[in-house]
Amino acid sequence: MRVSEIGEFGLIERLKRRIKTDSTVIKGSGDDCAVLKFDKTRYQLFTCDTIAEGVDFKPDDNPYFIGRKSLAVSLSDIASCAGLPRYCLVSMSLPKDTPVSFIDRIMKGIIDVAGEYGVNIVGGDLSKAKELSITTSVLGIVEKKFLCLRSSAKTGDLIFVTGKLGGSIRGKHLKFNPRIKEARELVKNIKVNSMIDISDGLSGDLWHILRMSKAGAFIYEELIPVNKGSDLHEALYMGEDFELLFTISLKEALCLRKKRIAGITAIGEIVERKNGLKLVDRRGKIKAIGRQGYSHF
Amino acid sequence: MRVSEIGEFGLIERLKRRIKTDSTVIKGSGDDCAVLKFDKTRYQLFTCDTIAEGVDFKPDDNPYFIGRKSLAVSLSDIASCAGLPRYCLVSMSLPKDTPVSFIDRIMKGIIDVAGEYGVNIVGGDLSKAKELSITTSVLGIVEKKFLCLRSSAKTGDLIFVTGKLGGSIRGKHLKFNPRIKEARELVKNIKVNSMIDISDGLSGDLWHILRMSKAGAFIYEELIPVNKGSDLHEALYMGEDFELLFTISLKEALCLRKKRIAGITAIGEIVERKNGLKLVDRRGKIKAIGRQGYSHF
Repeated sequence: MRVSEIGEFGLIERLKRRIKTDSTVIKGSGDDCAVLKFDKTRYQLFTCDTIAEGVDFKPDDNPYFIGRKSLAVSLSDIASCAGLPRYCLVSMSLPKDTPVSFIDRIMKGIIDVAGEYGVNIVGGDLSKAKELSITTSVLGIVEKKFLCLRSSAKTGDLIFVTGKLGGSIRGKHLKFNPRIKEARELVKNIKVNSMIDISDGLSGDLWHILRMSKAGAFIYEELIPVNKGSDLHEALYMGEDFELLFTISLKEALCLRKKRIAGITAIGEIVERKNGLKLVDRRGKIKAIGRQGYSHF
Repeated sequence: MRVSEIGEFGLIERLKRRIKTDSTVIKGSGDDCAVLKFDKTRYQLFTCDTIAEGVDFKPDDNPYFIGRKSLAVSLSDIASCAGLPRYCLVSMSLPKDTPVSFIDRIMKGIIDVAGEYGVNIVGGDLSKAKELSITTSVLGIVEKKFLCLRSSAKTGDLIFVTGKLGGSIRGKHLKFNPRIKEARELVKNIKVNSMIDISDGLSGDLWHILRMSKAGAFIYEELIPVNKGSDLHEALYMGEDFELLFTISLKEALCLRKKRIAGITAIGEIVERKNGLKLVDRRGKIKAIGRQGYSHF
């Protein structure tokens, strides 16, 4: 059996089953970040992400934005848990004939994102490879009371997203701003039951929440905020939007409206698991939709 | 200018100069681990390392040992700082036609090393690539009083190594045991002034200590413990021994002898910077030796 047959998520499930952790690990693999014991009021968040040539960027993309993205993807994971990032390591693999000026511009991108989000770059690793790839590892912190996971969506919750979805491949995937501030504003104002960042696509990432929360969902075509020049299909399946997808109770949703938090849109509701994931189209027709989010294999 | 012209260490120096960190960063890039504020008595250690096909292992190497090595190299960095590893993330890039059984064996190697050293595997990342590479990020902890860095070797210190050096490419580089326990035993018994793990080769890594400590060194050919089947040249320049290289005062060295700590060998002494790095051969002839440690580019 090859990786391409079992798929990325099949492989992750297979590996997860074999791993045991001690009681200082609040949440191990299976969420956006690992959640670790830290002090009386806070947890530590620990995450890593790799971006690679030909998969997450093209060789002729602007190196400044390749750098930006390499750190921003990990910061987006910290945002999903409603945390604040603090430290990062950068591990870069690159061909030996790479121009130094190209790497300078990658680093400028990384340093700029780090500066914007208050992250200390504390080290890294350089190695030789046929293709460019960058792994960033990020350490963050979150108050226990603010921690958001994928696994606590409740029947009756409303489902929200930040920003607009779809068409990210045409530029936004390199230039997005990880939703750290938006996540912090949310958890400081309301109780968020579950949260994830949209990296695999709305349907794929909502599916992660449903699976972890043992729930189902209805989402409404006419409510989904689609980017200009994009369409519903891209919004559902393209991925790399790096917006936040989260669920809150109806009571909190009313509270949210009072607080006038901008830039978020209700797109559906959490229902019982037996319903699976359903899309209600503009004519009111209901159809089951697959996850079909991005899988590496 | 290409990366191959400026070299790995030239590039690291260039990148380091552009990075600023806040006061919670005790030691940023430039040592084996980043050292971060943690609590009253302890620091947190944070490190990552990448191993890649064709550089750190061959495609036909036993995948179990590829897995072992991928985590062991980062644990060796924690050992250099005399810390205890606690958590790790595994980021794996692999071709899509990789057999699942191959990955299972890599994971078995990683899980076994993690188990041996009390490390929790708390997550990771899978992505598609042309060649296999694995980045491990490790979080550890060290008591403030035990922290060892590269930068505090003092004139008059004796230079020691653990184990034997040279010929690692013929097998040991895949099967070594990171010297966590040895480092802990050392710092619990004596005051270690500086420490590093030998990854680039004895001369290359001693050079790192000398540069960071603004010092010079004499090492003695007849004292260097060379592995069976290997030779002085390999011991000096081959690298990937993953033994510890450390310096202690003469007074501590006497104390060390009393404590009967096994498996370590004195190989030379720290002298003033102007002496550079010198090798005294078996006939008493002194010659300057270059660093010539392993550079990726």
